[in-house]
Amino acid sequence: MKSNPLDPLPSWQEGKAKQSILSFVEKVTSENLKDFVETEFRIATFDNDGTLWVEKPLLAQLAFYKRVVLDADVLKSKSIWFRLLHWLKSFIWNFIDLLKKLAAYIHCGLTTEEYRQHVTTWITQAKHPRFDRLYTELTYLPMLELMDYLSTHGFTNYIVSGGTANFIRPWSEQVYKVSADRIIGSSVKTRLAERNGQLAVKLEPIPFFFDYRSGKVLGIERALAKRPIAAFGNSLGDVEMLRWAGTSQESLRMLIHHTDAVREYKYKPDPFYYFGKSTLEKAEQYQWQIVDMTNDWKKIFSFE
Amino acid sequence: MKSNPLDPLPSWQEGKAKQSILSFVEKVTSENLKDFVETEFRIATFDNDGTLWVEKPLLAQLAFYKRVVLDADVLKSKSIWFRLLHWLKSFIWNFIDLLKKLAAYIHCGLTTEEYRQHVTTWITQAKHPRFDRLYTELTYLPMLELMDYLSTHGFTNYIVSGGTANFIRPWSEQVYKVSADRIIGSSVKTRLAERNGQLAVKLEPIPFFFDYRSGKVLGIERALAKRPIAAFGNSLGDVEMLRWAGTSQESLRMLIHHTDAVREYKYKPDPFYYFGKSTLEKAEQYQWQIVDMTNDWKKIFSFE
Repeated sequence: MKSNPLDPLPSWQEGKAKQSILSFVEKVTSENLKDFVETEFRIATFDNDGTLWVEKPLLAQLAFYKRVVLDADVLKSKSIWFRLLHWLKSFIWNFIDLLKKLAAYIHCGLTTEEYRQHVTTWITQAKHPRFDRLYTELTYLPMLELMDYLSTHGFTNYIVSGGTANFIRPWSEQVYKVSADRIIGSSVKTRLAERNGQLAVKLEPIPFFFDYRSGKVLGIERALAKRPIAAFGNSLGDVEMLRWAGTSQESLRMLIHHTDAVREYKYKPDPFYYFGKSTLEKAEQYQWQIVDMTNDWKKIFSFE
Repeated sequence: MKSNPLDPLPSWQEGKAKQSILSFVEKVTSENLKDFVETEFRIATFDNDGTLWVEKPLLAQLAFYKRVVLDADVLKSKSIWFRLLHWLKSFIWNFIDLLKKLAAYIHCGLTTEEYRQHVTTWITQAKHPRFDRLYTELTYLPMLELMDYLSTHGFTNYIVSGGTANFIRPWSEQVYKVSADRIIGSSVKTRLAERNGQLAVKLEPIPFFFDYRSGKVLGIERALAKRPIAAFGNSLGDVEMLRWAGTSQESLRMLIHHTDAVREYKYKPDPFYYFGKSTLEKAEQYQWQIVDMTNDWKKIFSFE
């Protein structure tokens, strides 16, 4: 992506959203202004699914698991428990069967390095059902421009995802220019195992940390011990992170609103089971900038 | 600290330990050599207590808690439970009393930011009982030179401590030039609380992660998803981290051995309750470089 010094955000329509980015960056990077922020505190945090890439009709990580659990090769476990479960297969429901396979996948002795290798293989091949393109092509061009724009202005970008960090790390450097150590995500427990005299870190089928809603704030605080001054999300899961990024000093909080059924998808920020105060109402209450994908983004994907 | 281009490690005695550092750095940073490592993989991990600063007669973090629980100001909690416990004070043993105070300290509504502020205050005042100097003056000069030397050669230094990350973060940038996000440590659970409409992260008196022995490897893997190629420790707690840093490629693993009762302290790497294969035997088995503080370090502290 070429950056244009005259317009660093070419895919953004002229308007309030684009203006709020430009004006925020000018305020916090101009040494003679009162809102100036030193580079070490220019922290920007981005949700991933729905904020940086497509999350419909199915989260990419779920698509990955769906593919993986249907892949017999992965399930050639030698464990007696697995074979026992396999023998019981015809006696249990389909749903239990799927759960079992997923647990077997996670428990079949995968190391973190092997898991990341599986993700790497999958992400270079798997295609999105509607767009028939690689998932990594379905990242939002305006957000990539924004990340670039922020990092050229001394910001450090972090991805703060409800998905697992190890699902994003294998490709984040190449796709987002965000290195593995700057991915904050959910995780399962791990344990140290010895294999042929070598140490390896193995995944356990036990949840360790859920990086969602308040978990996003706790994850950021645990990893950085700093508060972001810019945060970007698209759903209920990002509400606490966006609130956390708002301090007395100047901050930029944006809610990506999926309004474009033609070019992408149209849906509300809240999941179907949520009946509290809506995320859009909270955006208004806390004065977050709403990004209307239909009107604020000239292009959504780079291939358009 | 001035760095000397002719001798980047002036406090290190000429010998095998110093030579192993110089030769390792040359091998992994010379593009024309087979062991060359790109900067993004030049990861160095350092234990803190006993490796970078003095840990005797009492770990600094324990000294901090000892000071804090004796400080009545901190304990002016308004909680009914605390007052009740206070009223019961005369009925319970001294030990329980101390535990209660510690729990009250951690539970009295401290946010992570307040905790780090307490540490900041303590560390600028507290003096070591034997040396009568600030704890931050009791860092090992040769190790500071080593950290500097590695970072000028494209390494990223991380501290991997059994102590809590939040105890080290307030002063690590100033003392070690290691920023808060590069501290991997133990932690307690946290929760998000609302106070006067503002969000705050509060500490809970529940252990979350113990960054010791295999926990050090899991902590590094969880934070970075990369393996260090250089690792430095001084005790049983560092054995797994040092093993983990040894891969097929060139690596530097060092065990700081406390042999100097005159200038510092003399003790074994293993705690009194440990009866397994000794850490020194493991160092020999895995061919780690032992740093004999008496003979390998010309100066231990900068004030000598």
